[in-house]
Amino acid sequence: MINPTMMPNWLKQRAFLTPDRIAITYGNEQITFSKLDEMVMRRARQLAAIGVRQNDYVGLLMRNSLEMVLNIHALLYLGAIIVFFNTRLTEKELIWQIHDSKVKWTICDDELQGFIKGQTKTINTTELCSMKESETEIVTTFSLQHVATVMYTSGTTGKPKGVQQTYGNHWWSAVGSMLNLGLRENDSWLLAVPLFHISGLSILFRSVIYGIRVILHRSFNANRMNEAIKKQNATIASVVSTMLQQMIEELGEERYPCTFRCMLLGGGPAPKPLLEACQAKEIPVFQTYGMTETASQVVTLAPEYCFSKLGSAGKPLFPVEIKIVQNEKTCRPYEEGEIVIKGPNVTIGYLNRSDSTSKSIRNGWFYTGDIGYLDGDGFLYVLDRRSDLIVSGGENIYPAEVEAVLLSHPNILDAGVIGKKDEKWGQVPFAFIVCSQNISERELVAFCEERLAKYKVPKGFKMVKELPRNASKKLLRRKLKEKLDEK
Amino acid sequence: MINPTMMPNWLKQRAFLTPDRIAITYGNEQITFSKLDEMVMRRARQLAAIGVRQNDYVGLLMRNSLEMVLNIHALLYLGAIIVFFNTRLTEKELIWQIHDSKVKWTICDDELQGFIKGQTKTINTTELCSMKESETEIVTTFSLQHVATVMYTSGTTGKPKGVQQTYGNHWWSAVGSMLNLGLRENDSWLLAVPLFHISGLSILFRSVIYGIRVILHRSFNANRMNEAIKKQNATIASVVSTMLQQMIEELGEERYPCTFRCMLLGGGPAPKPLLEACQAKEIPVFQTYGMTETASQVVTLAPEYCFSKLGSAGKPLFPVEIKIVQNEKTCRPYEEGEIVIKGPNVTIGYLNRSDSTSKSIRNGWFYTGDIGYLDGDGFLYVLDRRSDLIVSGGENIYPAEVEAVLLSHPNILDAGVIGKKDEKWGQVPFAFIVCSQNISERELVAFCEERLAKYKVPKGFKMVKELPRNASKKLLRRKLKEKLDEK
Repeated sequence: MINPTMMPNWLKQRAFLTPDRIAITYGNEQITFSKLDEMVMRRARQLAAIGVRQNDYVGLLMRNSLEMVLNIHALLYLGAIIVFFNTRLTEKELIWQIHDSKVKWTICDDELQGFIKGQTKTINTTELCSMKESETEIVTTFSLQHVATVMYTSGTTGKPKGVQQTYGNHWWSAVGSMLNLGLRENDSWLLAVPLFHISGLSILFRSVIYGIRVILHRSFNANRMNEAIKKQNATIASVVSTMLQQMIEELGEERYPCTFRCMLLGGGPAPKPLLEACQAKEIPVFQTYGMTETASQVVTLAPEYCFSKLGSAGKPLFPVEIKIVQNEKTCRPYEEGEIVIKGPNVTIGYLNRSDSTSKSIRNGWFYTGDIGYLDGDGFLYVLDRRSDLIVSGGENIYPAEVEAVLLSHPNILDAGVIGKKDEKWGQVPFAFIVCSQNISERELVAFCEERLAKYKVPKGFKMVKELPRNASKKLLRRKLKEKLDEK
Repeated sequence: MINPTMMPNWLKQRAFLTPDRIAITYGNEQITFSKLDEMVMRRARQLAAIGVRQNDYVGLLMRNSLEMVLNIHALLYLGAIIVFFNTRLTEKELIWQIHDSKVKWTICDDELQGFIKGQTKTINTTELCSMKESETEIVTTFSLQHVATVMYTSGTTGKPKGVQQTYGNHWWSAVGSMLNLGLRENDSWLLAVPLFHISGLSILFRSVIYGIRVILHRSFNANRMNEAIKKQNATIASVVSTMLQQMIEELGEERYPCTFRCMLLGGGPAPKPLLEACQAKEIPVFQTYGMTETASQVVTLAPEYCFSKLGSAGKPLFPVEIKIVQNEKTCRPYEEGEIVIKGPNVTIGYLNRSDSTSKSIRNGWFYTGDIGYLDGDGFLYVLDRRSDLIVSGGENIYPAEVEAVLLSHPNILDAGVIGKKDEKWGQVPFAFIVCSQNISERELVAFCEERLAKYKVPKGFKMVKELPRNASKKLLRRKLKEKLDEK
């Protein structure tokens, strides 16, 4: 019997099929798929030498770089499961995730090693590059049902959860995206979002599955992005609104070449003025909706609907189904409810969190916690990201997580965090607190900075006598938002 | 738990996602996906009215037409399994396949109904079109593991076997092909090969999965093919060598527009003069290798290797693996052996033939029976189609099947059939026979024509005293070929 869930190792197969195509442009380097496979083989043997084995959980704490790409592929060659850590996390947050995921090793950039030393076996890039190689078996066949990667995301509980992404999740995400956006042999995908986020990692997988080039940037820089589009023939780029805004400003009176065919815009609906600016410059913007649990975008709005369906996230990818549910009932068009998703790119669940998993995945449907509705044509409109998710410059901030930190302060009795509009970042977190005695804003910031990644630290605080809560003591964030607007 | 083998009904999903794109051009008709869905819904209700139910096996004996397309989709809407019958078969052959597949109904073109009346419940197109509609449930979710279609193919046994093709086989074939050929929103696929063959049917599925247009022709006509490419913006066409040869001749001094991007050439390696003619006219020819059991092409040769790898079928599609096996051992490069294939587009087996299935599919690998080798770069060279398969104008002819018919003649003691080179058809069947008394060629032809589709009837006969057989009495077809060359 043929097992339809097995597939040749992706990079190996790609290097066999189209060895001479360019896989990665990184700075001045051009690396073919064949060369990449060779470099990854070497790295796999080095990782084997330090003791990485099949089914090991291995942490990765790195910024975008060629080294990071090699480590990702090499870990998959060894059959290890990669746990991605956000490099912007504080020591406390990192340590929590390291212990929660029980990683055996963590591979990190040299300058980040100090954060986690003593918490896990660590090896930095310099050490790894100079390791001797040890002979090892390579995984030649990927099972679509196996977990490839884990990425942490928070939720209503306040504590982050590790989202398990299978090979199948990544595969189907790549295939669904291709059915939507098409595929051309000259495609080059500009990657300046973090590889430790699904938005970045998914591009790396697409490159290998499609056989197209990735133009990898270490970090976002509007000018370098524009240069890559204008001079390096990038045809597709993944961005969030703040990035796109800066790119447009930087572009000035110039235009992108017509070979540039897709600006894939994640992280919530785009402001109308930005879409208008893009239209004036004939930039094809594809707005998307997706999350770590769906292995990147699952809903996309084609540019031709950008204004007629303003504010919509679009329609699902081909293998994906969406419905809106309230009180266990499927809503009619325009009725608001929870957005639930079914499709082969949806996670199998959270790492070591069977409770959260069975709460989120029911009867084959994933309950996103986000609120929205479908219009009469089936276009999705997202009203509220789950648990009032704050999206700040493409990073997700979960109010519950920030609140939990605030509540751990001895003099804070209650806390409520919401997103505040911000011109540069889209949103920034803002905290309402109830205190037993006065605390200075400076002290509050210092307290948070020790415990939270910088982007999660509230950019404003307001002391109040009590927080608006309903009968069952649930925080009424909408009321907080009204208070903020009153300010 | 998410079930990664379920997917929304393809045409329904496509009609929802891109309702206004053109699905089919047929003569002067242009039918959008939304309109197609509507027509298919009506047809499904008509089929329900005659009693077609989920899991019924329903035969289809039709020539390419819009009606045939409606029936195919409508049967899948009802969850029925379609058994495709080749319209060129004789009454005897048809009846055998009807009984073997135990179809509950056979839907046929009006003029073909006479062949099968009394053997199965039949309904012709005219009757079906005028049926009243009956309310029915539509299958909204396809399981990739379910059988969608059955197509008959012969083999070494002489009796045809029904190849079961699952939804997953068709899905993965479409995805694998897309990863290889790319996908553009303006793609239009020219379909003039029979829909009852996998080469034609697979185009129909790709159209729905990709969201692209099919230009459907009732039958092959070189002039109409060229017109579709030149004036209707066909970008891809599926052909066999004889078709391509005629198209090139008909094209004369003219050229195809540069939007035409892929001539997908099946049915064995192309003769060099044909490839040279295509090169002179800048026609991008992709040679392929595939079979009913692999739901169309699994190996493809990109045009840039057309001469440097002359005679090769190319490399496998991304999800597919190939190896060469002899005596249970994997061969080294350039070593000849049986071509075996693994991949999610490989059949789950033959209908009601567990013996043949377990002979052909072992440890997840499908043993094609074809002989070939891989070169040092992994390119496949096919030396002999299985059981000395004769490919005549794109139709497969199995010598064993023709021999079985010849042996049923009271005065034929032994028979051996091989392919003879033919300028127009590539190959035609030629028979060597041992007779107990003289039989005229006219009588032989008449005898065969009653029992075999016309293209299977030998185009020449030679009476011999005995046939070359080895110790275990296996026919030595190579010796017959030498005899033929001596002639």
